[in-house]
Amino acid sequence: MGVAHTHAWRTAPRFFPMAAPPELALLVGRDEARTRAAADRLEIAEIETDWRRAVEREDIDVVDICTPGNTHAEIALAALAAGKHVLCEKPLANSVAEAEAMTAAAERAAARGVRTFCGFSYRRTPALALAKRFVEEGRLGEIRHVRAQYLQDWLSDADTPLNWRLEKDKAGSGALGDIGAHSVDAAQWVSGQLIEGVSAMLHTFVETRPLAGTAQGLGGSAEAGAPSGPVTVDDAAAFTARFDGGAIGVFEATRFAQGRRNANRLEINGSSGSIAFDFESMNTLEYFDARDDQAAQGFRTIQVTDAVHPYTDHWWPVGHGLGYGDLFVHQVADVVAALQADTAAHPDFAEALKVQRVLHAVEASARNASRYTSVDRPDSQD
Amino acid sequence: MGVAHTHAWRTAPRFFPMAAPPELALLVGRDEARTRAAADRLEIAEIETDWRRAVEREDIDVVDICTPGNTHAEIALAALAAGKHVLCEKPLANSVAEAEAMTAAAERAAARGVRTFCGFSYRRTPALALAKRFVEEGRLGEIRHVRAQYLQDWLSDADTPLNWRLEKDKAGSGALGDIGAHSVDAAQWVSGQLIEGVSAMLHTFVETRPLAGTAQGLGGSAEAGAPSGPVTVDDAAAFTARFDGGAIGVFEATRFAQGRRNANRLEINGSSGSIAFDFESMNTLEYFDARDDQAAQGFRTIQVTDAVHPYTDHWWPVGHGLGYGDLFVHQVADVVAALQADTAAHPDFAEALKVQRVLHAVEASARNASRYTSVDRPDSQD
Amino acid sequence: MGVAHTHAWRTAPRFFPMAAPPELALLVGRDEARTRAAADRLEIAEIETDWRRAVEREDIDVVDICTPGNTHAEIALAALAAGKHVLCEKPLANSVAEAEAMTAAAERAAARGVRTFCGFSYRRTPALALAKRFVEEGRLGEIRHVRAQYLQDWLSDADTPLNWRLEKDKAGSGALGDIGAHSVDAAQWVSGQLIEGVSAMLHTFVETRPLAGTAQGLGGSAEAGAPSGPVTVDDAAAFTARFDGGAIGVFEATRFAQGRRNANRLEINGSSGSIAFDFESMNTLEYFDARDDQAAQGFRTIQVTDAVHPYTDHWWPVGHGLGYGDLFVHQVADVVAALQADTAAHPDFAEALKVQRVLHAVEASARNASRYTSVDRPDSQD
Amino acid sequence: MGVAHTHAWRTAPRFFPMAAPPELALLVGRDEARTRAAADRLEIAEIETDWRRAVEREDIDVVDICTPGNTHAEIALAALAAGKHVLCEKPLANSVAEAEAMTAAAERAAARGVRTFCGFSYRRTPALALAKRFVEEGRLGEIRHVRAQYLQDWLSDADTPLNWRLEKDKAGSGALGDIGAHSVDAAQWVSGQLIEGVSAMLHTFVETRPLAGTAQGLGGSAEAGAPSGPVTVDDAAAFTARFDGGAIGVFEATRFAQGRRNANRLEINGSSGSIAFDFESMNTLEYFDARDDQAAQGFRTIQVTDAVHPYTDHWWPVGHGLGYGDLFVHQVADVVAALQADTAAHPDFAEALKVQRVLHAVEASARNASRYTSVDRPDSQD
Repeated sequence: MGVAHTHAWRTAPRFFPMAAPPELALLVGRDEARTRAAADRLEIAEIETDWRRAVEREDIDVVDICTPGNTHAEIALAALAAGKHVLCEKPLANSVAEAEAMTAAAERAAARGVRTFCGFSYRRTPALALAKRFVEEGRLGEIRHVRAQYLQDWLSDADTPLNWRLEKDKAGSGALGDIGAHSVDAAQWVSGQLIEGVSAMLHTFVETRPLAGTAQGLGGSAEAGAPSGPVTVDDAAAFTARFDGGAIGVFEATRFAQGRRNANRLEINGSSGSIAFDFESMNTLEYFDARDDQAAQGFRTIQVTDAVHPYTDHWWPVGHGLGYGDLFVHQVADVVAALQADTAAHPDFAEALKVQRVLHAVEASARNASRYTSVDRPDSQD
Repeated sequence: MGVAHTHAWRTAPRFFPMAAPPELALLVGRDEARTRAAADRLEIAEIETDWRRAVEREDIDVVDICTPGNTHAEIALAALAAGKHVLCEKPLANSVAEAEAMTAAAERAAARGVRTFCGFSYRRTPALALAKRFVEEGRLGEIRHVRAQYLQDWLSDADTPLNWRLEKDKAGSGALGDIGAHSVDAAQWVSGQLIEGVSAMLHTFVETRPLAGTAQGLGGSAEAGAPSGPVTVDDAAAFTARFDGGAIGVFEATRFAQGRRNANRLEINGSSGSIAFDFESMNTLEYFDARDDQAAQGFRTIQVTDAVHPYTDHWWPVGHGLGYGDLFVHQVADVVAALQADTAAHPDFAEALKVQRVLHAVEASARNASRYTSVDRPDSQD
Repeated sequence: MGVAHTHAWRTAPRFFPMAAPPELALLVGRDEARTRAAADRLEIAEIETDWRRAVEREDIDVVDICTPGNTHAEIALAALAAGKHVLCEKPLANSVAEAEAMTAAAERAAARGVRTFCGFSYRRTPALALAKRFVEEGRLGEIRHVRAQYLQDWLSDADTPLNWRLEKDKAGSGALGDIGAHSVDAAQWVSGQLIEGVSAMLHTFVETRPLAGTAQGLGGSAEAGAPSGPVTVDDAAAFTARFDGGAIGVFEATRFAQGRRNANRLEINGSSGSIAFDFESMNTLEYFDARDDQAAQGFRTIQVTDAVHPYTDHWWPVGHGLGYGDLFVHQVADVVAALQADTAAHPDFAEALKVQRVLHAVEASARNASRYTSVDRPDSQD
Repeated sequence: MGVAHTHAWRTAPRFFPMAAPPELALLVGRDEARTRAAADRLEIAEIETDWRRAVEREDIDVVDICTPGNTHAEIALAALAAGKHVLCEKPLANSVAEAEAMTAAAERAAARGVRTFCGFSYRRTPALALAKRFVEEGRLGEIRHVRAQYLQDWLSDADTPLNWRLEKDKAGSGALGDIGAHSVDAAQWVSGQLIEGVSAMLHTFVETRPLAGTAQGLGGSAEAGAPSGPVTVDDAAAFTARFDGGAIGVFEATRFAQGRRNANRLEINGSSGSIAFDFESMNTLEYFDARDDQAAQGFRTIQVTDAVHPYTDHWWPVGHGLGYGDLFVHQVADVVAALQADTAAHPDFAEALKVQRVLHAVEASARNASRYTSVDRPDSQD
């Protein structure tokens, strides 16, 4: 993430005109030698090993937090207190309580003109941004269905060793927070509706895995008797949802879907049209318009690379697609544009908190025999 | 359905060698004039207006029931009592109780060599039959995910008039029983696992519709003030499931997915491979083999039209696909082959009852705040 | 082909209303025992071993010729002379001279109300018929590009034995006449333009093959030293073309395209839109409308299974596709409808002759260093 | 192109480790003010308005030529004479004579350790590089068919004004040189075979266009009577080809294929497999392996984003695709790696000359009634 962010800060001003291009003043990392090496490669002059020094410096305007989730709150709170704008990687925090504290601090800081942003980078995909525009233009009519899947497969092999993403105390949750969070954010953002309640199932397919370093061979196959440890997060999450605008949703997130490398999918069906997106084909959007004459109706495969599409007018000729790394460039462009115009950019901490609350309700429902659980009151039994 | 079945009985012996081709002896319908006209067109010599007469006749070996669901039980019970083999359209019945009675009768009849069959015709799709073969061959390894969607869009327009499929007393249920039943059957059959429990949501988007005959114009748009009536079934069903072999499932059935004409989809992910199917592309199966060398892995689009594939060796050269109507030809071929060899053909009443029980658990869970509900004990609160 | 045609004559009246359904009076074949067996299976009461007897019979109205191409002319001429309507399989004949004689006879017979038809069955694909309708409606504007590929792969293995389709005296030509003919017919029919001239290349990749019966094993791999024979037709044909309406075309036909089972493809680009078709996905048509608003332009995947589409209103609900065999049902329906209304049905012999002339020009150009060759004067050197 | 190249020089060292990252020392442009502005935006300290000054400077190691084709030869010859390594945009030159002179100079310079490179950037697409690897590994067996299309649509509207790409004296040729050149290069590079001869057609659909600046409105629709000028290049090119390894090819390049934004496609069929690529889906490669067991054969959609694939191990996790701009980063990485290791990188001037010769033969054949024309002796009449 650090590389992607740094690359984006460098690249954005070359493609998106900016009154004042951002300067990368300081790289912070805990290990001095490694931080120095990274700063050299990334052409950043100064380093620090204590993030507090960054927050104290007068010449720093923006703090970009790419650390693990359990450190977000402390850093962000300090940065906001010091009057820095903050861009924080998703998930906003590892708990709703922390996210609430951050959002409260963000609201206080906003009174002094300080802005917050959360790094739900998939929003910067031109095709998803176009989908949102289509919804706002009323092309889909009344929205009925939201269908979101985030399917990966890199844990399919039971002999893949344990890593921190499989340990609850570090990662917070598994597929749910890692990739399901993106689905929840995209679903709410594109549909323009918020999730009111969920009925959820979490599941762990492989309950113990070999410890890293003990596995043998290319296939990662563990020796018999090799030391192993418990997986303490969900391998997969599935839930149904009700939205505040009347839509219903079906969500699924997993890292066990063999052959699905990064199938971040969103489909929305309305009374007069539909959109469908899959990140594995990130430069296209499927769009169905029920108002087309009946003989000629069909899902259109829009190549979202045209001058009239979001972001793409800053890049290449039509038909010359973008890549994953370019999403972070868009994020920087949006953040800088907001700061220079002194306007809001989505999503801020308050909006990211709404995602966090949905994830919390999912976990509560899963613990409670999948019972329908309100996002606002996840612990009530009504 | 009557036309499709008749066409199939006629066509099957021309493509699937049979020791004794079936004869269409008798067409039964309630209205004499309409039944006579149909029989003429379908080239069936005799008609009856009372199904009891068919059941009584000595020269009838097989009774093919294509009537509405609420009449299945009575006819099937009489036919079985009279020693006739029975092919009954899906759903087996409108209630679990009726389906259980039919299954009990089928078991008694089986002792006398009488066979039963239920018309889950999608099983006869070569691509789905190939998927099942792949699972049985162990190509997918340990199955983790079952993902079934049945998406249609013909009710998207809120001005489409009421019809019997939207009235609970006639149709039993809405999208759930009409199309979701196919998904449940296919999921259990292909995966080789049975659903143990579900957590479900049912939803009705359009609660009243104009009465048929009162709508105006091509678009079916109702005049203001036109008489209307209540929709008493679900417009959409969504549920998560746990299977007895350790897989988890996500199911969705709707008739409100604009642009999805008949997207009957099934995807299964296992530890060593995946299959994905969509009836909108019925002659292909997507197959992923995780044992392919890493640089060359990818979902294969298999054109299931080869001599080595199920059913297709009886038809055209490779690459020349089949159509929906051909599924019923396969069904007849399977039924006749089973009768002539005196073996079982899938699915019999007992297997169809298992689908019915899942639908019942779905309805029970939906009534109970989506709480996880056991298929065996849908009414318990544990 | 005989099975497909017989099946179609039987099936058509059940789905397409006809004043008088056709009766299959007589099956003609050279070998009495095999013809009798076929007639029994196909439920045709009478047989003959000499086609002249069929032509003589008063009670025969239509002669359906499914014999090899070198016999078409003789049978068709006799049938037309006897006042029978004739449906002749494609290609119309093995030479332009024969095709011209047949067309002249057809014109004479037409004066007596006798109709001719040629079996270019792919025209009966609903998606291609829709494409033609779109062109006629002006949706594509001025047509610039025609792009036709017919790709199969069943000869890819050099050890596949010789068969009659690889011998010039029996088959006339190879990929060109067998499948390229379909492309030429579809291109001219859908575009509404005729090919004026071509520049062509024919190629034979595998020049000798083992004789049938000498190959060993499932893979068809020939023993070393097994007897072999020469392939005397083209394995592949490729040509560029100019159309009389200003379009240019690129055609390719091969049976060596590994993995392409039956990719009969046609794409047409006009000033205001495009269509693209692939028989491997026979129930869909890709359609691009350049008049859509720019942000929402894209190829639409039309499922050509709706009541407003050609042929499909006679079959199943929307989204329930047709198969290859159904094309022949449409052909019978079109032929019978034309005969009963005493109107023309496409294509008649004159139209089929136009395809033959293009193939002839292709062969002439290929012999002449690919020099551009006029369809009307293929042997001139201007 | 200048922006893409500059961005690539900056970005490459961040993702591809280099002993010594390149420095952008000097930007050369004819207009001082505009060059200065560009240099500021691109963060290049120095500028020149005469390219000769760049060639003279001792501290310049590599000259990257992004000027129009008619200036390539002069600059490249001077740079090579001065001992600079040269990266020259495609096409190498506007005539074979110039390209030959450049290649001769490159050979002389090579003796002094100087390297040349030509910017056929599509070779840097991971999926095409993987296709080449598959051919080299023998996966496709004996190659029979090469099928290359480069379809764009930005000239479909006859009212789009004239621009320099439509004038022969500036652009050299139209679709042929602009995009067909990419197809020729990719076809030869991936297949490992060179084109021996071609039979070609060039065509101009719209022969006059309004002059730029005279058109009205968003649609570019010209006022009646507005001044117009002649289009002097081809709008489309189509040709068949024979390769030196026995394959045959079909090529098509056009900017009039409505709906095809940048469909740079390549398909190769061999005796044991096939590959198919379309730049509109640049992160995937279709691959068919005829050695798969028969029931499971099908084109695989490989997501070429894995650590084992070309280039992609330097970027993001599997499934997170690249974009068009990243191809130039790969080009820089390859050039720098070659220079630092003192090895060759493809394609050098000699290889680019081979493309130029094919284009020349295409033009000669098109002038000569599409007669088959040898690439080596395009002007002979044998």
